[in-house]
Amino acid sequence: MARPSRWDDVVRAAGKVFRRNGFAGSSLEQVAEEVGMWKGSLYNYISSKDDLLTAVIAIPAERLTAEAREIATGPGDPAERLREIVRCHVDVLVDNYDFVAVYLQEVAGRDIGAQWRAYDREYAALVEQVVREGIASGAVPSGRDPRLTTMTLLGALNWLTRWWDPAGDVGPDVVTAQIADIVLGSSAPVRTG
Amino acid sequence: MARPSRWDDVVRAAGKVFRRNGFAGSSLEQVAEEVGMWKGSLYNYISSKDDLLTAVIAIPAERLTAEAREIATGPGDPAERLREIVRCHVDVLVDNYDFVAVYLQEVAGRDIGAQWRAYDREYAALVEQVVREGIASGAVPSGRDPRLTTMTLLGALNWLTRWWDPAGDVGPDVVTAQIADIVLGSSAPVRTG
Repeated sequence: MARPSRWDDVVRAAGKVFRRNGFAGSSLEQVAEEVGMWKGSLYNYISSKDDLLTAVIAIPAERLTAEAREIATGPGDPAERLREIVRCHVDVLVDNYDFVAVYLQEVAGRDIGAQWRAYDREYAALVEQVVREGIASGAVPSGRDPRLTTMTLLGALNWLTRWWDPAGDVGPDVVTAQIADIVLGSSAPVRTG
Repeated sequence: MARPSRWDDVVRAAGKVFRRNGFAGSSLEQVAEEVGMWKGSLYNYISSKDDLLTAVIAIPAERLTAEAREIATGPGDPAERLREIVRCHVDVLVDNYDFVAVYLQEVAGRDIGAQWRAYDREYAALVEQVVREGIASGAVPSGRDPRLTTMTLLGALNWLTRWWDPAGDVGPDVVTAQIADIVLGSSAPVRTG
């Protein structure tokens, strides 16, 4: 349906509220209050709380999958492409902090709906493809299990929403470089103060 | 208070239900049904749903923190102690799958209560202490940020509940060895089929 003009504000407010209270613990009243409109007006935008979750979650999920598809099948050696994937994941996280946190809390790996399962699977498969190429090329130490290495990387990246402050001392560049180094098994020069 | 005889069953059932529906989406009726008793009888065991969450969560949190305390301050070089910590984390996860999943979904890094924040912090600090010793001794590549390395490790371990089946092809020994190898930057011999 055509979205009235405050759609972006509504989705942003929903992301904040869901993140704070969890999806099950959130009400449309709270979302309305966060965005500063009456609950009744929310129904111009959505017909249920589920619609809002879908909107919130689609933002990081679609971007991440689209970019990973491009990187995984693109040029560059596997190590470079793995670094690009890590960079992209960190960027999406920084740009969509509340949305990503909601995605991870409510959906990822929780077997909740076919649509999200498909995103999860496609994204992990794309990363795993590059990890496999990395192992074949020697960029990732031989002997690593491709799936376990992939999920170790995704776990490390996904866990960032639980502790990392992108505006703090350790910025996105350092996080990107170090997480990629850890997974690639490279001993990079000192990158942090 | 003295716990009647089915206390362990009640906690186990609560872990299952919370894991399936999330804490906010779970009801005492569902827990009662899972354990096979009337809801009224549950009040012999607890006075609220929060009591059940506390009981469920305390099981992995206390064991993990106690064992990490012992390992972190114990003998052995830092690489060995890091491997022991990973082994212990995987063991606690395997032994308490539902409880750990609830802990991670509902509590870890979510700033929910002082008690759990204290567990989170103490555990991460213990692991970070060993990571720092590992960097100093050369067991962990120099240039790694200790906190980022620690949280990468914990993220990888915590993410296991979202995808890993301990009874599947890749067993606890392989998971332990490979996650430790990744964080230690070691290229171990092939360990998976």
